[in-house]
Amino acid sequence: MSLLVVNASQVATPLGQGPACGAAQSRVAVFPQAVVRCQGETIAFVGSLEEHDRLFPPPQEVLDAQGGCVVPGFVDPHTHLPFAGYREDEFDRRLAGETYAQIAASGGGIVKTVAATRQASEEELLRLTLRRLSRQLLHGTTTTEAKSGYGLNTEGELKQLRVLQRAAQLQPVEIIPTAMPAHEVPPEWRHNPEGYVELILQEIYPAIAAEGLAQGVDVFCENGVFSPEQTRRLLAPAKAYGWRIHLHADELFPLGGAELAAELGALSASHLLHVSPQGIRALAQAGVVAVVLPGVSFFLRDRYAPVRDLMAAGVPVALATDCNPGSSHTESMATIMQLACLGAGMSSEEALVAATLNAAAALGLAHRLGSLEVGKQADLVVLDAPNPKHLVYHFGVNLVRHVVKKGRVVVRDGALAA
Amino acid sequence: MSLLVVNASQVATPLGQGPACGAAQSRVAVFPQAVVRCQGETIAFVGSLEEHDRLFPPPQEVLDAQGGCVVPGFVDPHTHLPFAGYREDEFDRRLAGETYAQIAASGGGIVKTVAATRQASEEELLRLTLRRLSRQLLHGTTTTEAKSGYGLNTEGELKQLRVLQRAAQLQPVEIIPTAMPAHEVPPEWRHNPEGYVELILQEIYPAIAAEGLAQGVDVFCENGVFSPEQTRRLLAPAKAYGWRIHLHADELFPLGGAELAAELGALSASHLLHVSPQGIRALAQAGVVAVVLPGVSFFLRDRYAPVRDLMAAGVPVALATDCNPGSSHTESMATIMQLACLGAGMSSEEALVAATLNAAAALGLAHRLGSLEVGKQADLVVLDAPNPKHLVYHFGVNLVRHVVKKGRVVVRDGALAA
Ligand SMILES: [Zn+2]
Ligand SMILES: [Zn+2]
Repeated sequence: MSLLVVNASQVATPLGQGPACGAAQSRVAVFPQAVVRCQGETIAFVGSLEEHDRLFPPPQEVLDAQGGCVVPGFVDPHTHLPFAGYREDEFDRRLAGETYAQIAASGGGIVKTVAATRQASEEELLRLTLRRLSRQLLHGTTTTEAKSGYGLNTEGELKQLRVLQRAAQLQPVEIIPTAMPAHEVPPEWRHNPEGYVELILQEIYPAIAAEGLAQGVDVFCENGVFSPEQTRRLLAPAKAYGWRIHLHADELFPLGGAELAAELGALSASHLLHVSPQGIRALAQAGVVAVVLPGVSFFLRDRYAPVRDLMAAGVPVALATDCNPGSSHTESMATIMQLACLGAGMSSEEALVAATLNAAAALGLAHRLGSLEVGKQADLVVLDAPNPKHLVYHFGVNLVRHVVKKGRVVVRDGALAA
Repeated sequence: MSLLVVNASQVATPLGQGPACGAAQSRVAVFPQAVVRCQGETIAFVGSLEEHDRLFPPPQEVLDAQGGCVVPGFVDPHTHLPFAGYREDEFDRRLAGETYAQIAASGGGIVKTVAATRQASEEELLRLTLRRLSRQLLHGTTTTEAKSGYGLNTEGELKQLRVLQRAAQLQPVEIIPTAMPAHEVPPEWRHNPEGYVELILQEIYPAIAAEGLAQGVDVFCENGVFSPEQTRRLLAPAKAYGWRIHLHADELFPLGGAELAAELGALSASHLLHVSPQGIRALAQAGVVAVVLPGVSFFLRDRYAPVRDLMAAGVPVALATDCNPGSSHTESMATIMQLACLGAGMSSEEALVAATLNAAAALGLAHRLGSLEVGKQADLVVLDAPNPKHLVYHFGVNLVRHVVKKGRVVVRDGALAA
């Protein structure tokens, strides 16, 4: 199968097989009026139509970009997709003066999501997850990470990860599943958090590994959740299971999460609102990708992660939605780019690199995803905009016109292709 | 023609024929599982299906809300829709340290939009404006205000307003046109701003009035644009032309724009980032609607208008996109509600009232638009959400599933109806 994308105003893409940091974080190559040829699942050519026609036979299918620009498919490297239940009341309650602790004490907060997710049948959870994946695809996300962590027991965590495994077969978005039973200490273990850590190590991880349901593991390292010492123990078996390491780090307190991520060889560290200067240096030296989640800062009316300090120190910065029902209920990577620029102070180019190549790097997939280069997977988005600056400039609306995943048109004119 | 909207989770709407202020600003009536009957262009019934079936014959058409909630169509009371050209480079330039003055000096800023809009043919400007109107409709806006002000000469202002007149005939969104030649002093009059004021009064206004192209008039009262004294003169003929008065007030400096709006009997005053306590009292006493534009604050990384102070003083607050190519390029009222809540500190209910009933009141149309009540125009939106809190909670995506304008389905399943 061959597909040729024609009539683009430009093809705009980062370049590289690994994360872009320092000056490279803002480097977006622009190929005016270029065409993109997809051959099977792979990009075979990016360049002028004339050169294409000299080198290749006519394509089997043509996709008309109608003067829009072409960018890589977005990669969303941090989500909590498989959840049930909503928490739409909490924003107004916080605004009216209730604290997070009060909301949690009255049955709100993450405990509410855990209860709803445990109660949902696997079919219901699958249905909810598929709806979110459709919305991601319509907004240009072609690959997404997704974590468990609302089951918080063996059965619940397995259910979430099985849903992801099934969802991956049913729709085009590629799913990178992460085991995260260490997302929170569940209510029934509050009296004995150490007991829950042991349950994870002795029972939950082995069960997940036995079914081959995860490619990575993540831990919420935070005051009152899992201590740095517990986090070390919880991540120790990762290598044996063949799991990549991620960390929720320095979200609420400067607890040394970034340093820990560097020490443990994590691929990515997320949140980082309170990362210390030493933490930033440690991330840079170890080459850990900083996954910044400006949707959370926006929705919780909190500070933003110090993206300019991170980039200045040479840390590759990626962006993610953190799609979850408590602190960032959005599927749109463009929205996240807008918040990264207008809230946190990234440039449009830095945000585009962060949402594509560096997001792929945060999942260890930059060799295959995140840029439009010959040999990479043919995942791309055609925008209803002359250049990718419009992703930030024309905010609050979805500019995605067409989406190509593995060389196949999966969104056409803003609607899921049949 | 009769249309019945069924299977809604709830109908949620402000109530009233005029602006809601004080405690009423947060009052949203909720009718669980209610149906809405539209008869011709008017709402004939809101209540239970059983009662409907007792009172009315079967409808000619049924619209299935599929468990979503129903809210009034959004009213966008402040836009600069008919413009040509983009200014997507300015954000990154500001971020890199250039000042607005430097950008303007190198041909950017509003002058760039004026040049592009003057140069565009009427057909091209119509095409651009129709695209924006489609996007508004897909995001649930059923009525929009739209200003001239990028022509800044007789021909250019007439062209913008004629485009609005033609666009009103070509698609479903109702357009309320506002004459705003006093949006800026054009380059050719910079040496003699008084001459431009005279041109407006002697030539531009009369030409607009002669063709019946405006329902209102607006002036940008600001240091370096039009002084309070000039603003008074520019608004003096409004009554004679039958134009409603609007004001761009206190955006950059506390210049007494709010007080002036109250003094001159303006229907609305917009921006108000720097409104003084006296200005707030004046607005409240005169019943002027404060039109808050959080998209501008977000995009320019500026402060937000003091919405809580305005509401506490009894000023009715409305929300608008200010859709324009320089400071707020968005068509989405839900995005504006999100920014009003998460940026400026409104509650979801206050934002919903501000985007519907109070937005209608800012245009003098609250007797006819802005709420779902018997006798009002049948303009409504069905959301892909169980309640309207999701408009803020589920941010960055378009939750609009169906739109009904004047009793007719104009958006179905997220796409323009044929
Ligand atoms: Zn997370
Ligand atoms: Zn304006």
